[in-house]
Amino acid sequence: MSHNLLEGKRGIIFGALNDMSIAWKVAEKAVEEGATITLSNTPVAVRMGDTAKLGEKLNAEILPADATNVEDLEMVFTKSMEILGGKIDFVLHSIGMSPNVRKKRTYDDLNYDMLSKTLDISSVSFHKMLQVAKKMDAIEQGGSILALTYIASQRVFYGYNDMADAKALLESITRSFGYIYGREKGVRVNTISQSPTMTTAGSGVKGMEDLMDFSERMAPLGNANANDCADYCIVMFSDLTRKVTMQNLFNDGGFSSMGMSLQAMKQYSNGLDEFKDPSL
Amino acid sequence: MSHNLLEGKRGIIFGALNDMSIAWKVAEKAVEEGATITLSNTPVAVRMGDTAKLGEKLNAEILPADATNVEDLEMVFTKSMEILGGKIDFVLHSIGMSPNVRKKRTYDDLNYDMLSKTLDISSVSFHKMLQVAKKMDAIEQGGSILALTYIASQRVFYGYNDMADAKALLESITRSFGYIYGREKGVRVNTISQSPTMTTAGSGVKGMEDLMDFSERMAPLGNANANDCADYCIVMFSDLTRKVTMQNLFNDGGFSSMGMSLQAMKQYSNGLDEFKDPSL
Amino acid sequence: MSHNLLEGKRGIIFGALNDMSIAWKVAEKAVEEGATITLSNTPVAVRMGDTAKLGEKLNAEILPADATNVEDLEMVFTKSMEILGGKIDFVLHSIGMSPNVRKKRTYDDLNYDMLSKTLDISSVSFHKMLQVAKKMDAIEQGGSILALTYIASQRVFYGYNDMADAKALLESITRSFGYIYGREKGVRVNTISQSPTMTTAGSGVKGMEDLMDFSERMAPLGNANANDCADYCIVMFSDLTRKVTMQNLFNDGGFSSMGMSLQAMKQYSNGLDEFKDPSL
Amino acid sequence: MSHNLLEGKRGIIFGALNDMSIAWKVAEKAVEEGATITLSNTPVAVRMGDTAKLGEKLNAEILPADATNVEDLEMVFTKSMEILGGKIDFVLHSIGMSPNVRKKRTYDDLNYDMLSKTLDISSVSFHKMLQVAKKMDAIEQGGSILALTYIASQRVFYGYNDMADAKALLESITRSFGYIYGREKGVRVNTISQSPTMTTAGSGVKGMEDLMDFSERMAPLGNANANDCADYCIVMFSDLTRKVTMQNLFNDGGFSSMGMSLQAMKQYSNGLDEFKDPSL
Repeated sequence: MSHNLLEGKRGIIFGALNDMSIAWKVAEKAVEEGATITLSNTPVAVRMGDTAKLGEKLNAEILPADATNVEDLEMVFTKSMEILGGKIDFVLHSIGMSPNVRKKRTYDDLNYDMLSKTLDISSVSFHKMLQVAKKMDAIEQGGSILALTYIASQRVFYGYNDMADAKALLESITRSFGYIYGREKGVRVNTISQSPTMTTAGSGVKGMEDLMDFSERMAPLGNANANDCADYCIVMFSDLTRKVTMQNLFNDGGFSSMGMSLQAMKQYSNGLDEFKDPSL
Repeated sequence: MSHNLLEGKRGIIFGALNDMSIAWKVAEKAVEEGATITLSNTPVAVRMGDTAKLGEKLNAEILPADATNVEDLEMVFTKSMEILGGKIDFVLHSIGMSPNVRKKRTYDDLNYDMLSKTLDISSVSFHKMLQVAKKMDAIEQGGSILALTYIASQRVFYGYNDMADAKALLESITRSFGYIYGREKGVRVNTISQSPTMTTAGSGVKGMEDLMDFSERMAPLGNANANDCADYCIVMFSDLTRKVTMQNLFNDGGFSSMGMSLQAMKQYSNGLDEFKDPSL
Repeated sequence: MSHNLLEGKRGIIFGALNDMSIAWKVAEKAVEEGATITLSNTPVAVRMGDTAKLGEKLNAEILPADATNVEDLEMVFTKSMEILGGKIDFVLHSIGMSPNVRKKRTYDDLNYDMLSKTLDISSVSFHKMLQVAKKMDAIEQGGSILALTYIASQRVFYGYNDMADAKALLESITRSFGYIYGREKGVRVNTISQSPTMTTAGSGVKGMEDLMDFSERMAPLGNANANDCADYCIVMFSDLTRKVTMQNLFNDGGFSSMGMSLQAMKQYSNGLDEFKDPSL
Repeated sequence: MSHNLLEGKRGIIFGALNDMSIAWKVAEKAVEEGATITLSNTPVAVRMGDTAKLGEKLNAEILPADATNVEDLEMVFTKSMEILGGKIDFVLHSIGMSPNVRKKRTYDDLNYDMLSKTLDISSVSFHKMLQVAKKMDAIEQGGSILALTYIASQRVFYGYNDMADAKALLESITRSFGYIYGREKGVRVNTISQSPTMTTAGSGVKGMEDLMDFSERMAPLGNANANDCADYCIVMFSDLTRKVTMQNLFNDGGFSSMGMSLQAMKQYSNGLDEFKDPSL
């Protein structure tokens, strides 16, 4: 059911690969809520993924672009304003990738060119997006810009590797640029820190299934899924959160405020009992 | 403009005194968004304030109650369910008072009976509300409960006195009960940490005007006002934030993420220059 | 081995019950490092516990006192200054108790008189200690005051109950009073947030053993024990941390910065596997 | 006065430029406390600065090295172990530089090659140091590694520019590597978040004087200076903090826990009054 929360608003969604993607759900809901949008993703992702299908469904133009490339980003903002007929009201940055994770390099054996790529793709791309948009004056007064993050930026989750550092950097950029963009143009910049989500990217993380189980049992409301995240994004794009900026907002069923839940501890103790009794 | 975000929902708003109150604005917006509500406040506040006027305007019954009194709270939930015709979907706790502040006792000269009252009124009342509601099974599955807080719970603002401690306690209760209520009933419990707001309560805080000026110049989007806060409350009561719980959400124009802004520093340096040059 | 870090300093240690107590270890180390001290505990604890033995060993006078009672606290400071021959340089507050926990009342079935006692004993007693000391001008310029806390103040640990709220309040009092005491007398006020420790108090917490196992496997350095905590206290009492105040310092082997460790996850997954395979 | 806290320990201090440097003070105190050390800095800094003088004074060998270069770091650890006669017990990383700040590029006009350098020099160098040390097994069991940071990593201070992001990344690396190094070798990794300090680096920051004044009046104990920081570093290198890891430790007179102090507000209000009364 639509609430017309984004009626008349124009948006750009970066990072919708397939229908498991959070960005995919956000794109769908944004259109449902009355927005017109463009979609952007890397040329490879556009070729390999289902972005075209989504574009057709939502009547949204697809703008292949490398988000680490300033010229590409300029093109995306220029074309989006042309296509949508005005300045942009909201942007979603759902981009992240670690070559170190892909190549199974552990955190104490990082390749530094790869680390540099992790940071450039997953974090600095957000700064570039913001800087390009601001220089072009492409965002409407009061506009709202979001990036997706994960709690590993603040606490260590083994196996999350250099993506943790990338997310910490991303959250810092959010604050740093949020100050400037807020002060000068009234533009909000925030991150949503989402539960582990079984996207194509998420499924690459080591031990993802067990982590999701732990997370599910720790969080009193269970893990938030991609749909829940999309709802929260809509809210943050809407005019109802006009004064919220430079925040990291947890959409995680309460996980971030948990130290230990009864359910997770029971499961953990099962493991202990087994350990204590080797006859099993 | 309404988005029907609370269509068919039932709510209780505690703490609407007059049209400067945040709770007042929340009540208005909640009804505008399709909710039916009851209003509660202390008997004294009901007599002295304009709650009756609001009740009339919104067609909302007023239930005078002392929120530190368990029986009173039971009455409020019982009657509200009767009047509204079912379990409650959302509750706002906008209650806080410090006798020490009123009596101008400084933080190093607290009266401990008064401190006990500060905590009971401003924090423990929230636990009582939650415990009563849960025992009565008065909240709908997926319901949403909010309390208002201030950043003094986390950083010291001179003059805020024992209210800072009360807010820290309030935020802890939010987490502690949020865990239980989430796990057992899917009920969300959160706080909104609002900019200093010139309500009747706020106007009692020492040096409030200068603090609001500082806060206004620090926050890139400026202070959030009571209307902004009401919008955020609606969002948190709606189904669009189903997985957000145990959080402290800043609605403050970015103040909480600021260390020093250019505008505030300029103002501060003016003060310095003056100090440096006594001839002025 | 002593480093004479507290040579010539005078201290008061509240809460040493027996040789499992953290306060006990702190007392021993403080004397080892050159301090002279007095010990204080409730009259009941003094009768039931081994405080007398410790006093004898350390040549430290024991001052039975109820830390929730302002007159008792005045007596402790007065006598301590007499006995030790001057103003006090350091104080340890290691006091906490929840009648709700003792009576096995769950957090959604709190008795409010008991909650009031929990807060009074575990948190407000610290304010009283600070206010009494300040009014009596009993703390030396640059003195250092510590209270012990636990991470449940910030994240929910099931079973920790209203002690979590008490610790949140304690940490807020630390900040609030730390501001005033720092500004006016150069006195530092901090909390140390310690790993779960198998003290007499700790052993009362529900599921303590399994929690300690989880905590041990999560923390890269394992749990900190009472001795480790005592060392950290000495450091905080010494002149080497003169500018550290209003902080909550984790002495926990890194637990507070962990989201999930490999070791804890393995154990957890053991539990999962068992669950998945009921034939075990 | 020495407490022999580092007796028999071997350390490496990176970043001592001149006697305003924090690293300089740390080197002096470390030796005073019984350690033997080597000093490292960039070849340019060694030529331009007074590192040689310090080396002479402390009888410490100087190892010029580019901390962004893995081979150079390997050389530093190899030679340090040779010179000092065993594995290293402690390391200080006091390295940071932003070409964007130097070239006066604002945060919304960053040069991305420069940003990459800022991150490489100020943050990734710490990872390299840790990874090299771990691969070489150059750190003694229970060793302690520190980096210096600033609160701009967590809250925005205008003018601090991309150094804020670098510090956020540095603090994340501290946690991420701290987990691994702790688990596998019992090595602690922490950051100290220091008051603004008038070092050669600090004096380059825009509006540094006024910021230090604000900070001084906000912090109840005033700003911590380089000597205070050195004391804290000694404490963290010593065996008295064996279980403290993955922490960001504020050495700032309480600034980090302040929202607004009376003294700072008075100064600020002076600026306001002046503004209100243009006749002055």
